[in-house]
Order: sequence, then structure tokens, then C-alpha cells
Amino acid sequence: MVGGGQGAFIGAVHRIAARIDDRWELVAGALSSDLERAMASASDLGIAPDRSYGDYAKMAEIEAARSDGIDAVAIVTPNHVHAAPVIAFLKAGIAVICDKPLCATQDEATEIAKAVKAAKVPFVLTHNYTGYPLIRQARAMVAAGELGTIRVVQAEYAQDWLTEAVEETGNKQAEWRTDPARSGGGGAIGDIGTHAFNLLSFVTGLRAEALAADLQSFGPGRRVDDNAHIMLRMEGGARGMLWASQVAVGNENGLRLRIYGDKGGLEWGQENPNVMTLARVGEPKKIVTRGGAGLGGGAGQWTRIPPGHPEGYLEGFANIYADAADLIGGHGDRALLPGIEAGLDGMWFIDACIRSSKADGAWVAR
Amino acid sequence: MVGGGQGAFIGAVHRIAARIDDRWELVAGALSSDLERAMASASDLGIAPDRSYGDYAKMAEIEAARSDGIDAVAIVTPNHVHAAPVIAFLKAGIAVICDKPLCATQDEATEIAKAVKAAKVPFVLTHNYTGYPLIRQARAMVAAGELGTIRVVQAEYAQDWLTEAVEETGNKQAEWRTDPARSGGGGAIGDIGTHAFNLLSFVTGLRAEALAADLQSFGPGRRVDDNAHIMLRMEGGARGMLWASQVAVGNENGLRLRIYGDKGGLEWGQENPNVMTLARVGEPKKIVTRGGAGLGGGAGQWTRIPPGHPEGYLEGFANIYADAADLIGGHGDRALLPGIEAGLDGMWFIDACIRSSKADGAWVAR
Amino acid sequence: MVGGGQGAFIGAVHRIAARIDDRWELVAGALSSDLERAMASASDLGIAPDRSYGDYAKMAEIEAARSDGIDAVAIVTPNHVHAAPVIAFLKAGIAVICDKPLCATQDEATEIAKAVKAAKVPFVLTHNYTGYPLIRQARAMVAAGELGTIRVVQAEYAQDWLTEAVEETGNKQAEWRTDPARSGGGGAIGDIGTHAFNLLSFVTGLRAEALAADLQSFGPGRRVDDNAHIMLRMEGGARGMLWASQVAVGNENGLRLRIYGDKGGLEWGQENPNVMTLARVGEPKKIVTRGGAGLGGGAGQWTRIPPGHPEGYLEGFANIYADAADLIGGHGDRALLPGIEAGLDGMWFIDACIRSSKADGAWVAR
Amino acid sequence: MVGGGQGAFIGAVHRIAARIDDRWELVAGALSSDLERAMASASDLGIAPDRSYGDYAKMAEIEAARSDGIDAVAIVTPNHVHAAPVIAFLKAGIAVICDKPLCATQDEATEIAKAVKAAKVPFVLTHNYTGYPLIRQARAMVAAGELGTIRVVQAEYAQDWLTEAVEETGNKQAEWRTDPARSGGGGAIGDIGTHAFNLLSFVTGLRAEALAADLQSFGPGRRVDDNAHIMLRMEGGARGMLWASQVAVGNENGLRLRIYGDKGGLEWGQENPNVMTLARVGEPKKIVTRGGAGLGGGAGQWTRIPPGHPEGYLEGFANIYADAADLIGGHGDRALLPGIEAGLDGMWFIDACIRSSKADGAWVAR
Repeated sequence: MVGGGQGAFIGAVHRIAARIDDRWELVAGALSSDLERAMASASDLGIAPDRSYGDYAKMAEIEAARSDGIDAVAIVTPNHVHAAPVIAFLKAGIAVICDKPLCATQDEATEIAKAVKAAKVPFVLTHNYTGYPLIRQARAMVAAGELGTIRVVQAEYAQDWLTEAVEETGNKQAEWRTDPARSGGGGAIGDIGTHAFNLLSFVTGLRAEALAADLQSFGPGRRVDDNAHIMLRMEGGARGMLWASQVAVGNENGLRLRIYGDKGGLEWGQENPNVMTLARVGEPKKIVTRGGAGLGGGAGQWTRIPPGHPEGYLEGFANIYADAADLIGGHGDRALLPGIEAGLDGMWFIDACIRSSKADGAWVAR
Repeated sequence: MVGGGQGAFIGAVHRIAARIDDRWELVAGALSSDLERAMASASDLGIAPDRSYGDYAKMAEIEAARSDGIDAVAIVTPNHVHAAPVIAFLKAGIAVICDKPLCATQDEATEIAKAVKAAKVPFVLTHNYTGYPLIRQARAMVAAGELGTIRVVQAEYAQDWLTEAVEETGNKQAEWRTDPARSGGGGAIGDIGTHAFNLLSFVTGLRAEALAADLQSFGPGRRVDDNAHIMLRMEGGARGMLWASQVAVGNENGLRLRIYGDKGGLEWGQENPNVMTLARVGEPKKIVTRGGAGLGGGAGQWTRIPPGHPEGYLEGFANIYADAADLIGGHGDRALLPGIEAGLDGMWFIDACIRSSKADGAWVAR
Repeated sequence: MVGGGQGAFIGAVHRIAARIDDRWELVAGALSSDLERAMASASDLGIAPDRSYGDYAKMAEIEAARSDGIDAVAIVTPNHVHAAPVIAFLKAGIAVICDKPLCATQDEATEIAKAVKAAKVPFVLTHNYTGYPLIRQARAMVAAGELGTIRVVQAEYAQDWLTEAVEETGNKQAEWRTDPARSGGGGAIGDIGTHAFNLLSFVTGLRAEALAADLQSFGPGRRVDDNAHIMLRMEGGARGMLWASQVAVGNENGLRLRIYGDKGGLEWGQENPNVMTLARVGEPKKIVTRGGAGLGGGAGQWTRIPPGHPEGYLEGFANIYADAADLIGGHGDRALLPGIEAGLDGMWFIDACIRSSKADGAWVAR
Repeated sequence: MVGGGQGAFIGAVHRIAARIDDRWELVAGALSSDLERAMASASDLGIAPDRSYGDYAKMAEIEAARSDGIDAVAIVTPNHVHAAPVIAFLKAGIAVICDKPLCATQDEATEIAKAVKAAKVPFVLTHNYTGYPLIRQARAMVAAGELGTIRVVQAEYAQDWLTEAVEETGNKQAEWRTDPARSGGGGAIGDIGTHAFNLLSFVTGLRAEALAADLQSFGPGRRVDDNAHIMLRMEGGARGMLWASQVAVGNENGLRLRIYGDKGGLEWGQENPNVMTLARVGEPKKIVTRGGAGLGGGAGQWTRIPPGHPEGYLEGFANIYADAADLIGGHGDRALLPGIEAGLDGMWFIDACIRSSKADGAWVAR
């Protein structure tokens, strides 16, 4: 693991996700760029001192050389510290599991893409919401034509933790996520918008061809967007809207997806991810549960416990790690795991939003 | 009543709404432009033959002359037959309660506005969703500053009854609502979008200054929009999105409103209109019920039965009629009743959506 | 109408319910036993002075004699003033629409039953919740065997308005409803328990054969039950539980019904009465809406507006009045309208609960 | 671990729960009474062959003697194979984490209680639902008097997996759970009723003093109860109902708890465990989320991720394992971890239900 030392948030999430299915063991890390903190963090996590590094480059080099070297590295640093370690590990022949968004700038994205192309090992981007069983079932349903031709997508990701200027009162997460230098220019669009954008493509199998965006910064003094209104034109003629907000008071982590075709529609929300509604023209709406009655195996294949026993965010994230273990082991399903394409797509999204908004909401095409 | 004869839909709704609070009696009507049908419809409704007219102009003239003439007329014809009767009755000195949208064209709107200005009697537009008690309570809360400065509004009105081309298979409602000549050019934007647009202004007290729209017609052969994606810029700096759809499979009448300020947020949906959630920064979300505990009289003043005893669409509509009776009687609260301003606002909305969409989503300002 | 004068609650509800479908006109009344109040109330409601009576007996006599006499009378007095007027009007040959429960004592119930048997005019008891369209659809579904053989019923009616001793602080409704002399001995079991008990028989078509009850009075100084726990044995082998409470803080009018057979189950709640869930073994649960897609006409036949446009308590009540108009007119469906059998069943329920509870919860059979 | 070999269900759940917080490592096991299967299962799980036992007695003996012996054993066998291994390990000085219910018979319960009393090591019973953060917050709220004096409790646990006689068609879980010899006599009451019973005492801090039960077996040929209706009398005057069912079609794992005092009420359901509603007399109901805004730290202290990021069944279970690690390490909070008292309480519940039901629902006191 690179990043994720004491005081970090997403690193701990990655570690639990990796543990749940007992497919991974954490044996080495460059947990902080501060050596002392790196060592202390490693000690907390039971990493042997000789495999705790103060420097990701050294870690890549030494681990690649060990006969018992790591199978993969997780990159869980802030966005602007993704590109260099990703490239270093890929070059060293070590598979990479990287947090999203891909990186901070288009140039970095291009460099990473080159490295991925050149590498013989997998690159996985943790758009973790794609690991939710019902999201994967939804994807399979759309692919099987159960909704018919997709016409309309409505995606939203609403939070409220940046309603006030908490980045100025000591909230570390808020600090780097609202600092353009570290986040990469996007605020809500990068931090959460990319998840919603990725998810709608993941489920529908459709890429966005163009978007028009109106970005706002409501938090006093805020330097990045904290609310974004976006219209979408998808390949195949579908149209969509995407709303990302970190100032929508009363929303904790409201990622919601609604998809409508000429034969049916489905609706899902992340906060109660074990339930989805499915409508077909002329029929009563159905409540589809994770692994529940009817509708085939569906979501059940990516779940650990019976329907009615709720799984959550960590289990969805764990599916990414379990599948990554398969993939790196040589027998996984690439189609279900977000990789470089998803990463580049997300970077296009961030950039296009910023350009469109600056151009007063003009459509920006690929 | 003008319109609302046999086979019509909204006329019957107006009649029930007028009856509920026992403030109105239906005594005269030009229920159809077909005289035979007009007479038969009048007979069904217990209207005396001598007050059943085949012609609204005659009705206006004769009723105005009677000492026991009508106090008000309800105009419930298709959109393109609003302007002429509205103007005729206003000129005859008879108050008008008119279904929305105001009319079919901007020119008609201008004429109606003139007539309203010149008239000494009230003009009421039945944006009936403003009659829901919790919507009025929400308006009062926003006005009292409970949400702080409004930042973001999300309005949507999703239906699915036009998913297929039912206008071609004998659905009368679908026929005129998808015929540009009768609907006035707008499809979903006029039929339902205007309701959502009106509602967000009603609750926030803010007018839209500009909009950018992307309209689509998904139904095969359809001549008007059946799905609309709209971005909004409101006075005071708030921004919004509005989605109107008649092809969102699984949605019956999904009018929903979400409003966020710098102090709080509220969310309401028409399909279960007796409940609203209210969030304040740093506090748990509250479930506000129609006339329920806490939060003052609020919605309770526009309701007939105790909380927990659901009221619905008809009772909300009835509030418009009860208030109109007060207003016409000389002692009502004009502020709560949509009138010509709301009508003109809706006509601007329809026109601006069409112009923006034709201009590839360019912002259209007032 | 007998009862329902100024300050009363349920009388006004009956009047709106009667008006909604324009099948009834209120033309006479003995609105209060206090003559002055009766006259004032009649005047408020537009009843002609000569048809406003201070005495129900006189009203029965005179109205029966008039050529334009009333078609039916609504009895909306407190429970202990049901029997006498019901019998008087039936004897006078005037149809009766009576609020529930039937009356205050078993002796009165026997007398009413005799009068109903002897009468040539209909007797209707306003167990209004049977008028909800989805409740009627549920009944039809059970009758059609869609749930298979019924095994388990769970009924509950939870309110909280008597959490505190409001009967001692001027709440008129609470005063008579907690006074054994006026309520008839039962508290929650009579006021709301009878509704739940009636509803489960209405939907399942099964009578209770025995019950075991544990009644409590939590309100300080309260003389009747305000919380009741009841176990049920139904004919055909089904078993049930029924909970009625007026001290369940946070519940406004929580009447809920859940029914399970060997093939399926359904769940419905009064506070959002336009939605029901239906489960069949091995299939995903369905969301059935009032008049919505699939599942045949069902609830749609007792509704006025399209699905998604919510109807509420008053429209359900209005269905009772519309059906009563049909029945009294000679062509209604007796099976859907609660009458004397439902009334006697409810009186058995109240009495059996009290006897069982006094006998420490021993089963009391018919 | 004792039990939990190939094909078992709950053993795998325990293993994930133990892994999530990285406080436990699985190093030894007697995973099956069939030696070959035990060895194969151990191999699957990475347990060294020399610490895979075919016999729990041997395992207790050898592990107790090793300097690197296990810190605790998890007993995850069917109910009738709890007592012997629990006692063996306790006698060997090894802490025990045992699945619920405690055991199969009252005699076994007495023996276990003796062993626990004599032991110097902790005994933990995995009533895992007590590990849900909001359940612990609810317990703290009740203890702090936020609901006032508790009056009414409504607990239910509804499933549908035994609607049909699946025990006769090869469902292994159904086989032993419906076999009185292995389950201990109780069906639904033992398998799920004990959870609901435990939970209501855990949250309210009140013990049941007496119960009256009506048990049924609806599944054809079924030898244990699959539906149970129970009335409760709690210490301090509160009364309750408890419904446990495995034939309630449409319910997957519907454990729900509703508690009402003279000051407030709260409601929680397991299938969406991250949300609870809290009502106070005269105030609007609040939606309390796991670790969400307002109401103090509360649930947040037993959670790993921010509010809005759902945790589920496994995380609740993991809290039991994490707390057990603390307790066994000498610094845990005994009050939050179910132990022998909860186990004996559950055994009383099962026995009292059976006795009451045989006595036609007579009250059975402690």
C-alpha cells in the first residue's frame, strides 16, 4: 500500500475491503511520505519494519526484486500523488489497484495510460460502487435488453459535508479535496461526480458523447466546485442528467441511479444498496433484492450472506478486491473491473465539465 | 364551467375539488363545443337546460346579465381554447378559474394578461400542486429563513404514460396533449414541466432568470417533447435542475421537489404528499407531516382531517377552489393563489425551453 | 344527519365524504341534543330551519311523513347515542348510515340487530377503511386464491394522541372516548381496534373464532384501555395478532395489515394507502398501486383519478357513501358494504377482549 | 473454531466477522466431526494440518497446552452440539465465543452456566444483532431516559424461507433447524425468536417476567413451530408482543423493533439497519442515521465508515468479535456483550413458549 498512514481515511477502507474475503494480506507499505509516520503506521498495521518504506520508488524496486514480493500495490494517496507511484509499480512489473479519480491532470492521465498499455500486469481503478451486487445485476439486465433501448439516465451524488467551509476549520479530508493543486481542479465533479458518471456507463454500457455543465462554488471562499449540474448525451441517443453536490443539506452519501428504456426502468440508491426497483411497461413495479427471489442468480453471485442480511459499502468494495485477486491470478472477469478506460473516461468528465462551465454551459464533445 | 363534458378528464377533477368544501355549486356550463354533447353532459351533472350553453360567448353574456348569474367560471378546455373564453368572461365581469398552462401561444398570453389587468374580478390559474398543505408550509419555512439562503433546487416531474405511442391508438388525452396545434408547442414541458417550474418558484419565492434546455421526443413519431432536461439560474444566485418526462417507465406521477439552502434542506414528493423531510445543518433530519407534531400550525390550516389521515390530490386541488371562493368573495390571500404572473411565467418557461433547445442548449434569459 | 354539530369531528368527515361524488345532499338534521346549538349548526350548513330538529325521534317521524323526506340518515353521535336513533329511523322506514362501533353495549347491539332484521331499508356501518380501493383489491385477490390458504394475519392500529392524559386538559374527543359510560367500556379496542379487526376479516373473508387479550391503561388515571395486545384464532386455521394503541409515540394513524398464505403475502398501511406490496413464493415482491399497471382493473374501479395522483382518507370514506347510495337505490353490492354483521362482530370483539383480559388472557371463543 | 466446515453457513459468517477488524486470526479448528471433511475444510482455510482436529476435546486439550495456543474458540455447530464443546474449552481455560441459542436443552444450559461461573475466561454468545451501532445507540438512549418509562415493546422477526417444506427437499439448513433433536425443540422461536427476545431486553434493559404463547407449524409435516405469537409482560410494567415467523411470504429477514415510553418512541428494522426513527411527544419524528448529524457520538463509535456509507450484517457481527477481543484482552465492556445471562434468558424463552402454548396460551412466569 502507498498512502493510507495514520489519519488517512480511504486507506483503512481499502484494507478492510481487502481482508473481508481473505484473498489479500498486507505485507509491505510506503504509508506516508514522512518516514517516521510511515514507520509508525506500518507498525500499527503489523507490517515488518524491513518492508515499511518511506518512498514508493524504493518500495517498487525492492519488492519487485524479492522472491516473496507483493502481488499488487494499492495506491491510496491524494489525487496528485497517483501518477508517479502507479507508473513506478507498473514499470516494476507489479499490479496496481488505484483509488479514483485516476489522477490530477490530463497529462498525468496520458502518462498512466501509456504505462498501463506497456505493462504486463493488471491495473484496477477502485470505482468501488461497481462492486455492489445489484449494480452488477442491473448491468446484466440492461445488457440482456430487459429495459429495451436506453432513453434516459438520471444520476446523482448528493452529500452535505461541505455545506460550510469546513476546509478552513481543520478538516483534513476537506482541505486536500478542495485544494485545486491536490484534487486536480475538480471539486465535487472529481470526488463524487466521477463515481456517478462511471456508474451510469457501467450499468448502461453506454459512453457519454458530450456534456454541458454548470458548476458552482457555494462554500464561502471555496476554490473548487461544490455543486454541479450536468446534461449528458450518450451514444445511441440516450440523454441524461447528472447532479453532484456536497452542499445538499440532509444528504449523507446519496448516490442514486435511475435508468429508463423503451421497455422498462430501474432505480437504485447507494444508501440502501440491497434493494432496487424494476419496472416493465404495463406491469407492476418489482422490488428486486440482493440475491432475493426470482430474476435468476443475479446479484447473488457477488454476495456472502442470504438476502435480508444487508451487505454494505465495505462488501461492495471487497468485491473489487476479490475480483482483482482473480484477475491478477490470471482468471478474473476484466469486464466487471474498472481499469484504465474508466480512469480516462473520468478524467475526460472532469475536464469537460470545467471547460463547458467556463464556456457558459456549451456542449463539449469527445 | 367551460369544457369538461363527457369523456373529459380534468373537468371532473375541478368539479370534485369545488364540491369538497361546499363553497361552490355548479349551475351553468358550456361543457362542449358540440351542442348535443354539451346538453347531455349538463343533464348528467344536474345543470338546468336553460343554463347549459353550446357557446362560451353566449354563456358569458347571458350569465353576466342574470341577477343570479355565476360568481366564477372554470375554464377546463385544451390549452388552445383557453384564451378566448378567459377574455370573454373577464370582459363580462365574471371571475375566472383557468386550468394550466395559461394558453397555447405567447400572443394569447399577452392578450390574457391585458384582459386580467383591465378586469375588476380575480383570475386564478389552477397550479393545483400549490394547494398541498405541506407545499404551503414549505413556502412559509423558506420565507422565514429556515433553510437560509437558497443555493440549489432540484425539481422533477416524471411520468410514464407516453412511453409508447398511445396517441396513435385511441388515447384522447394523449392525442391533444401531443398535438402541437392544441397543446401549444410544448409537450412534457407544458403539460407537467410548468407545474414543476411553478412549484419551485412558489416554494422558494425565487424567479428563474435563465434556463438551458435539452428537449427530446422518444415516442416514435411524436411531434412534441416527451422528456426534457433543463438547467436553471434563479434570482439571488441559486441554481437548479428540472427534469420532466412522460417516458420514465415506473413513474406514475412523480412530481418531486428538493430545495437546499446554506442552513437547511427539504424534500417532498407528490405521490405521498402528507410527508416532507426537513434537514438543518448539524441536526438529524425531521419527518414533517401534514398538520403533525411540532413546527407550528403550518400545514394544519389547509387541511380537513387529523395528521395520519391522508389527504390527496383532490384535497390539494380543493384548497385552490376554497381560496378562490374567499378571494372572489373579497377576503382571500392573493399570495397563495397562482394568477396571471404564474401563468406568464409558465408561458415564458415553455417558450424559453423550446428556444434554448433549438439553440443547442444555449442559456435563454428573461 | 344526527349529531355532527358545531365542534364535532366525525360529522364533518361524513359530510365531505357524502359530497365528493355528488350522490347526496344534506337537507335535514338533528345536529345536537341542545336545540340552540342544533339550529345554529344547521344554519351553518345551509339546512332549512324547518328541517333542523332538536330531537332525532321527531326528525324520524316528520321526515318519514314528508313526500320529499330524506333517503337516509347518518348517525354520527358518540357510541352510547347510536342505538336509539338507529332503531327509530329504521322503524320509520329510513335507511341508516351509522358510525362505528355499532353501539355501547351488547344489549343495545341485540336491539339494533332486531331492528335491522325487521327493517326493509338498508343499514350501513361506516367501517370506512374498507372503502380504500387497494383494500377492496386485496379482498378480491385473497378471494381469488392469490395468496393460497391464509395462515397468518398481523393487524395493528397505532396512534399516539392519548400518550398523555389529554382527556383531563380539555380535549373533547378524548373526553368521551375515554369515558366508559359514553364509549361503552372499550377504549382503544373500540375506537380503533374494531377497525383493524373488521379490516382483517373484510380482506381475508375469515371470521375470528377466538381471541386472547391483554389490555392496558397507561395514561395516568385513564379508565379505559389505551393499549391492547390480542392473539387471534381465525376460522380455517389461520392465526393472528392484533395490536391497538393510542400511546405509541410517533404513530399518527398507523393502521397496517399484513396477510400471509401458503402461496403469497400482502402488506398495506393506511398512511400511504395508494400502495400495497404483494409477494408470491419464489418471485420478487411487487408494488401494487391504486389503479396502476398490471393486475387487472382491481382498485381502479373505486377511484376517481389516475394512479400516482394520491387519494386519501376522504375518498375511501366517500366510496362507502357512493356505494350506500347505490344500495339504497336498490342496485348496490351488499358484499362490499359493512352492515349489521360487521357491527355485531365488532361488539363481540370489544366484549371478548374485555372478558379475556379480565380472565388473565384466557381464550374467549364465540 | 468448532464446526463451520465445508457446506456450513454460520461458520463462514463468523470468520468474516472476525477478520473485518483484524483482531483475530484463524489458526486451529475442529471443523467437522468427520475427520476427512475436517481436514479438507481446514486446508481450504489455510489452517496448518497439525492444528486441524477431528475432535473438539482433543483440540481443547492440545491448544490449552501449546504456548501459542488459541486465545478463544468459536463454537458454530448446530444447537445440540454446543454444550459439550463449550464446557470442554472453558474447562481448558480457553475463552468461548458461541453461536446462539445457547444450547438445545435446559439441562445443558444449567451445565454451561456452571462451567461459565467456574471459568476464569470470558464466555460470549453471538446475539450478533446487538452489534448493530444503532441498536447500541438505542440502548443508550433508553438508558438515558430519552423515551421516559417504557410502556410498550413490539418485536418481530419475519422470514419466509420455510413457507414450503424445504427440509424435505434437500435444504441442509432447514433439515437441522426443523429437527427437534438437533434444534432443541424450538423452531422459529429458537432460531429467530431468541434474537428478537434478546434484542428487546438489550435495548430496553428490561427482562420479561412472563409470557403467553401460541405456536403453530404451518409447513406440511413440520415437527417444530414455524410461526409464533407471543404476548409479554416486562419488569417495570411494560407490555409487549413478539411475532416470529418463517412462513411470512415476502419477508427475507425482517427483524424489527419498536419501543414506546411515556416520553418517546423509536423504531428500527434490520434490513436497513443504518436508519432509526425517534419520536418525542409533541415533536416531529427524527431520522437518526448511523453516526449521522446530531444526537452525539452515539452509533458512530462502533462504525468504520462515515454515515451514508452503509454498514450491514457482517459489520454488526464484527463488532461482537472486536469487543470480544477487547474483553478477552482484559479491557472490554462486558455490558455490551451478550453472555451467559442472555443465553439462559433465551433458553427460558424457548421453554416458556413451548410450555405456554401447550397450556393453551396460559401465562408462564419466571
